[in-house]
Amino acid sequence: MVNIGIVIPAAGQGKRMGAGYNKQFLALRDKPILAHTIGLFEESDYVSEIVVVGAEGDIATIEELVSFYDLKKVVKICIGGVLRQDSVCTGVRALSPTIQRIVVHDGARPLLTLPAFHKFLKETETNSAAIMGVPIKDTVKQVDSAGNVLETLPRDYLRAVQTPQIFDRGILEEAHERASVSSYYGTDDASLLEWIGHPVHMVEGMQENIKVTTPEDLWLAERILTMREKER
Amino acid sequence: MVNIGIVIPAAGQGKRMGAGYNKQFLALRDKPILAHTIGLFEESDYVSEIVVVGAEGDIATIEELVSFYDLKKVVKICIGGVLRQDSVCTGVRALSPTIQRIVVHDGARPLLTLPAFHKFLKETETNSAAIMGVPIKDTVKQVDSAGNVLETLPRDYLRAVQTPQIFDRGILEEAHERASVSSYYGTDDASLLEWIGHPVHMVEGMQENIKVTTPEDLWLAERILTMREKER
Repeated sequence: MVNIGIVIPAAGQGKRMGAGYNKQFLALRDKPILAHTIGLFEESDYVSEIVVVGAEGDIATIEELVSFYDLKKVVKICIGGVLRQDSVCTGVRALSPTIQRIVVHDGARPLLTLPAFHKFLKETETNSAAIMGVPIKDTVKQVDSAGNVLETLPRDYLRAVQTPQIFDRGILEEAHERASVSSYYGTDDASLLEWIGHPVHMVEGMQENIKVTTPEDLWLAERILTMREKER
Repeated sequence: MVNIGIVIPAAGQGKRMGAGYNKQFLALRDKPILAHTIGLFEESDYVSEIVVVGAEGDIATIEELVSFYDLKKVVKICIGGVLRQDSVCTGVRALSPTIQRIVVHDGARPLLTLPAFHKFLKETETNSAAIMGVPIKDTVKQVDSAGNVLETLPRDYLRAVQTPQIFDRGILEEAHERASVSSYYGTDDASLLEWIGHPVHMVEGMQENIKVTTPEDLWLAERILTMREKER
């Protein structure tokens, strides 16, 4: 369970945040969202390398951030593609050949905790591909393009997917390569493995592990941090 | 589009809110959540009757609330069942026989606006059953009971369902009756119609129309009201 490499796609443009720049540089309490995210993995004894993938115009800012917060495990900062999937693919290639187990985690999910991450590693130790997901509170229905309801999906078996997602390097690389060749795009990495028919295991995530993409999310993230401090 | 009856299930126990009492009596700004919800329909010229369905122990409180906020269209306050579905069924029966078009709306959704409600009525005028839903931001996967991922659902065709839901009275009553006989339970009213094979139409809801079930939701609801005031 040691020698894990982390790929952090952080090329989001923050359009929904109305910030005019990458939302992952916005301050969440004492430091930028992205510094929280990278900092978590920096602290984990199981992690040996971190690769951050950013938009071309953000590379200098990410370099400064990594230097300022003294994030020593960041071995490379890569220029990402237009799509998240391309960014992850680039990040995976940048990891040392000795890294055989890879975790992908969104730069915009700063609220994962070290105990939750380590629990995830332990629970997924025997899986070549595993992800975190949480139950969905809403009733979810499938519709057709005309707006007719096709069915109400069985809620007990639905999960809203988060990151981290963990993979054996070989199968993750194969899935990305085949997807790239076929121009298949998924909304997460696990979907590429599903697409090539590789089993993916789901474990229980944490509701607090939100993706910060709107001002409301940022506000909720601050509140979650405040509550955590009080609980200490 | 006139002479619409409203059924408001409001028997939730607020366990998730940690309030120890029905969350719908919690104050959202100047008045209880439930007063916001009922007040909206009170103001609509298309609505002629409102029935509120509450837990047995809450009936007196709801009566006081209705009286205090002078909600004249509330014709009846009924004792609800254990399940939301039973409460709605009871509420539907309590409406006058002249009411042939029924809207069901959660007591815990105080942020629906009058323009959004009237737009919904107009858009669904020709549908015997129609509901509001919003796109889902997360990647959603279906799992089996062992936690194996079965598939990633096509996000473009998924909707998180909200209320209001609108129905011709005859088909709503038939669906509830047949569901009751067969002990079929759905997480919303539309699912009962789907279950008997009746077409249900989906229209675009509003992201702000949240169900207030946790302290975070209440906090978000307050913020949404503040933003609305600023936009005026």
